[in-house]
Amino acid sequence: MKLFIPGPTQVAPEILQEMARPAIGHRTEECARVWKECRSGLRQLMGTQEEILMITGPASAMMEASIRNTVATRSLHLVCGAFSKRWFDIASACGKEAHALEVPLGQGFQGAQVREALQSGIDKGEPFDAITLVHNETSTGVTSPLEEVGAVLREFPDTLFLVDTVSSMAGMEVQVDAWGIDVCLFGIQKAMALPAGLAIASVSAAVLERAESVPNRGWFLDFIKLRDRNLKEQSPTTPSTAHLYALAAQLKRIFQEGLEARWERHAAMAQQTREWARGHGWGPFPEEPFLSNTVSCLARGEGPDFAPALEILKSQGLLVSNGYGELKGKTFRIGHMGEHTSTDLEDLFRHFDNALEAKVTEA
Amino acid sequence: MKLFIPGPTQVAPEILQEMARPAIGHRTEECARVWKECRSGLRQLMGTQEEILMITGPASAMMEASIRNTVATRSLHLVCGAFSKRWFDIASACGKEAHALEVPLGQGFQGAQVREALQSGIDKGEPFDAITLVHNETSTGVTSPLEEVGAVLREFPDTLFLVDTVSSMAGMEVQVDAWGIDVCLFGIQKAMALPAGLAIASVSAAVLERAESVPNRGWFLDFIKLRDRNLKEQSPTTPSTAHLYALAAQLKRIFQEGLEARWERHAAMAQQTREWARGHGWGPFPEEPFLSNTVSCLARGEGPDFAPALEILKSQGLLVSNGYGELKGKTFRIGHMGEHTSTDLEDLFRHFDNALEAKVTEA
Repeated sequence: MKLFIPGPTQVAPEILQEMARPAIGHRTEECARVWKECRSGLRQLMGTQEEILMITGPASAMMEASIRNTVATRSLHLVCGAFSKRWFDIASACGKEAHALEVPLGQGFQGAQVREALQSGIDKGEPFDAITLVHNETSTGVTSPLEEVGAVLREFPDTLFLVDTVSSMAGMEVQVDAWGIDVCLFGIQKAMALPAGLAIASVSAAVLERAESVPNRGWFLDFIKLRDRNLKEQSPTTPSTAHLYALAAQLKRIFQEGLEARWERHAAMAQQTREWARGHGWGPFPEEPFLSNTVSCLARGEGPDFAPALEILKSQGLLVSNGYGELKGKTFRIGHMGEHTSTDLEDLFRHFDNALEAKVTEA
Repeated sequence: MKLFIPGPTQVAPEILQEMARPAIGHRTEECARVWKECRSGLRQLMGTQEEILMITGPASAMMEASIRNTVATRSLHLVCGAFSKRWFDIASACGKEAHALEVPLGQGFQGAQVREALQSGIDKGEPFDAITLVHNETSTGVTSPLEEVGAVLREFPDTLFLVDTVSSMAGMEVQVDAWGIDVCLFGIQKAMALPAGLAIASVSAAVLERAESVPNRGWFLDFIKLRDRNLKEQSPTTPSTAHLYALAAQLKRIFQEGLEARWERHAAMAQQTREWARGHGWGPFPEEPFLSNTVSCLARGEGPDFAPALEILKSQGLLVSNGYGELKGKTFRIGHMGEHTSTDLEDLFRHFDNALEAKVTEA
């Protein structure tokens, strides 16, 4: 099955083989070497000199970690779809006073809205400990202008900036330090093109300082504990060493391609996808300034029904996603990320066109 | 490097290859099939008809989950080494009123002590919501009599019985339902002989009922959320599908050997290890009734120093562990679990003897 869903995505065969390496002890020099290599590569990938934390687990666990470690009282969540909503749910489940700023599906967040919301909290005497933004909302293919929002956050030094780059990291530009991101977290199964299983976060000095004073951080997701073990290039618990080997190897491949070339490849694939879709009368679902380079969410509009074609493609070993939640049937999503190339998309679109044709002929 | 440490341990080559399978979508029928197969095999392995929960992450995360979901107020922790102490630390970090019942290193817990401690809580009007027991304390090679303690717990129906079988499951007999275990949790990198990365727990109906009423369970480790997704044979978050494939395949191998045969193989390897050690004047560190079948912790006593031999073995690609924490230098630990056989141990002991000889000759 070839995956064109918005993650997990295709993994290169040589990276899959890294997963099959013999187990190693997690307190050995060899494990420390790989751990260090991963963290060093991740710093370069993310544009940061800050601490890099890694856990075995899903990105959602790291979302919870970011809340448990930075929010003493109150958080603001920028919600534009299922995954940005999840962060709000997580904060609520952790007993925090969670507020949501919601926009209609298909929209993202711009600096001015964020400034207004944060200022309004201060004016009411209820400032936010942290604000969460999902850079690329996978459920709607919406990318918010991260650099612009980060610039606004500099006006609010007491509010920490928590960013989910799950489906953008390594597919779109993210500059953690230059853009003022306090926690930048992601999983590795999207544009990183690795098998799911690790979650990664950069944490700023301000985050670690804050964490010291937030009670009930718990144990597994405690940033202080993770940072302290990092000093020994170790994890407090037994990590998936298979994933560490795969990550180290994939970071090398990413740097071989070059970060800018990789971002450009993703932008070009997004362009190619939109042009093909427009030819069928399927426009992008997101509003113009929020179009994603890694996930295209395409709206049926007046175009033909795509659902039967998705089934035909699946039977041919090509997996494309229907819309998420209430958008099912109204939109579908193509993940063009990680290892995908323009040629892969051409091939997909040829099969897609044939599937549509077959359906029309049949009817 | 061949691992004779108390985990992670050797993984069969064909199981390592399962880790290298292409990524699959975690919302596909294929993933649900593997998920279901794992849960069904785990029920058989654990002797339970209760719910089986799986997360991508370390067993310590599942230890935290068991606390967050069952302890509203107060927990009792049976502490006999580093890993049973960890559970106490976790409960404290989660803001629970955590009590420890501690015995000297080398001892485990018997039913009478546990009865006394639980009754004393009730007499003081401070009953415990849950009690934690590490079946096999990896740091000291101590096994506590799980069935006996479980029988005592039946006298205290309001106290849930949380058991860590990290280094015993699949190497020693554990009967979750017959022995009255409410949460039985473990990682997969010990006697299960899989690469680290998944944590597993059975949860009784009483646990799920309790969880409903415990606030601030959080999101990632919420048993209710995990159970609800289980009904669809899914994980709430993206799991490591590589590990799911490996687990399904390894469960088959375990059943091919047969559970009783597997337990007997481990008991025989423990016997073999103790006999060899006694020949060098190294007695078992644990007291007699608590000797483990998966990890032998051997005390130097009046025997020769083992530390130089451990270094020589390491240079030969054979990894054996020094003692844990304050027991370093005074004890060393041999993990004989998972894929290991009597022949592997003979080979290890021959190299060990030669290394000791070499050291003596050199001196």
